Amino acid sequence: MKPYIIAIDLGGTTVKNGLFTKEGELLEKWEIPTRREEKGAHILPDIAAFVRGLLREKQISPEEVQGAGVGIPGPVDEGGYVKGCANLGWGRTNAAGILSELLSGIPVFVGNDAGVAALGEQWKGSGSGHDSLVMVTLGTGVGGGIIEKGHIVNGAHGAGGEIGHLTVNPEETKSCGCGRKGCLEQYASATGIVRLAEEALAVPGAVSVLSGKKDLEAKDIFDAAKSGDALSQGCVETMGRLLGRALSWLSLVSDQEIIVVGGGVSKAGPIVTDTIAKYYRAMSFYAVKETPIVTAKLGNDAGICGAARLVMTEMPA
Amino acid sequence: MKPYIIAIDLGGTTVKNGLFTKEGELLEKWEIPTRREEKGAHILPDIAAFVRGLLREKQISPEEVQGAGVGIPGPVDEGGYVKGCANLGWGRTNAAGILSELLSGIPVFVGNDAGVAALGEQWKGSGSGHDSLVMVTLGTGVGGGIIEKGHIVNGAHGAGGEIGHLTVNPEETKSCGCGRKGCLEQYASATGIVRLAEEALAVPGAVSVLSGKKDLEAKDIFDAAKSGDALSQGCVETMGRLLGRALSWLSLVSDQEIIVVGGGVSKAGPIVTDTIAKYYRAMSFYAVKETPIVTAKLGNDAGICGAARLVMTEMPA
Repeated sequence: MKPYIIAIDLGGTTVKNGLFTKEGELLEKWEIPTRREEKGAHILPDIAAFVRGLLREKQISPEEVQGAGVGIPGPVDEGGYVKGCANLGWGRTNAAGILSELLSGIPVFVGNDAGVAALGEQWKGSGSGHDSLVMVTLGTGVGGGIIEKGHIVNGAHGAGGEIGHLTVNPEETKSCGCGRKGCLEQYASATGIVRLAEEALAVPGAVSVLSGKKDLEAKDIFDAAKSGDALSQGCVETMGRLLGRALSWLSLVSDQEIIVVGGGVSKAGPIVTDTIAKYYRAMSFYAVKETPIVTAKLGNDAGICGAARLVMTEMPA
Repeated sequence: MKPYIIAIDLGGTTVKNGLFTKEGELLEKWEIPTRREEKGAHILPDIAAFVRGLLREKQISPEEVQGAGVGIPGPVDEGGYVKGCANLGWGRTNAAGILSELLSGIPVFVGNDAGVAALGEQWKGSGSGHDSLVMVTLGTGVGGGIIEKGHIVNGAHGAGGEIGHLTVNPEETKSCGCGRKGCLEQYASATGIVRLAEEALAVPGAVSVLSGKKDLEAKDIFDAAKSGDALSQGCVETMGRLLGRALSWLSLVSDQEIIVVGGGVSKAGPIVTDTIAKYYRAMSFYAVKETPIVTAKLGNDAGICGAARLVMTEMPA
């Protein structure tokens, strides 16, 4: 079997690249900037130029590379097409085909970034040893990836695992970025919890250590909640209640073995998973009440680990 | 390849049995009663006795049977164990192992009945030609089955596709049979829609053609709604809104190609799928707004068709 795997985690700001052995050992990793100008036309050529340079430097021929896996911040359909990616400026793009051509025919496999991160956590992280899992990524938005029998659930329209846009509050009057109202992302992302706090602080007579603080960040709210600030605790409870609700639904749809919580917000520590678990267990169907809810382990490496794993799982035998 | 497949649809009142060719043609079907006394201890021996008699009569030897598929009204885990089935009086049961032993070693494959019916519709019914689908069965309760890449999604705890217990109304004060509150089943089953109508009729001053009618059934409400009865139309709208909401969530979790609506309630005609679709499309995420919502085709044969298909899809090559 060919000895190397290339892993690429394509983000809106940087592209993370990893060189793995075919056994899945990470040998080295690098970052290059994501050039989004001209509708993202430079992105794949930049990646290809970097990878070709890397292979030259390491004296690895393309024939020694099994494949390249790529995580992409947009929906990917079962055929491997990126359905469009506002963040990169892309419309519908055959990213796998284009990149493979730029890389002398190295087979390329693409997946949605949240699904790829979930695959990484299932392989080497908190989901290790589990066949199915959901990973919810609490960052600027709320991403979700579902793994079943070791494969990413892309869905027929690339919306598999798009749990950030589950309508958790049909009574909401403010709009989500997607144009709908009451999406999980409006409450459970870093941006969402800041919005919850700002709204609570704006109520006349609100009392909080955060009153008057400028440029509020999610971390401030978790820190204040941990130190006993009731207003901040209320925001954390709202976030946990709505996440617990959404995850209780997931367990009645695909019923995963384990729930992994990652992303910047999860760095606030056990307060995040504990609050989610409290509401999840209180409202879940009996058969799935005890599904473990754990914090992700791989941090920023989840993407490249999952991209390497994508090659291992999707490569035709 | 062995020429015959046995299909068994095990219900709380009757067991439907079908004899299929290995190509999937239904040759003949029969029904026997389900004896639930003594904690359902007679059920599998009764089925085995019937099947043995049938094979004798048809002069088919057990060696000519590829396998038997069984749909069971309870959760089935990935290992093929029935996790318990209140309806039959069963606790955790290795139904496949027991029945196989009673049938001279014919391989037996079991699945949750809603999942098996979904597999039937995907194979020969409204989902034909689609790789993934969800089937929601609106009967006494609300059942759900999800098919992905041609296989039933059982889930890690046998709760895959248990969409009748999705919490669609966290504000509900009345309890569902499962002990929780606000489950989809409380509004979208035959029982649920009757309850909605009875509650609306009990409001002082309620005006409806159904006022004073005894032993209300779901059909009465749909008939009244079609003839312009506003109170009944309101009940149908509530049912459709909550089903549309739940299905919009499914499309952001497993994102199926098509949604199939079956069960007794679906016999009311296009009013059911039209009302569901109206709300589904209004509230769905852009990528999944156009997922087709269609009525099931196979009726009572969905179970035996799916059970036969289960043998074809799960039999190790």
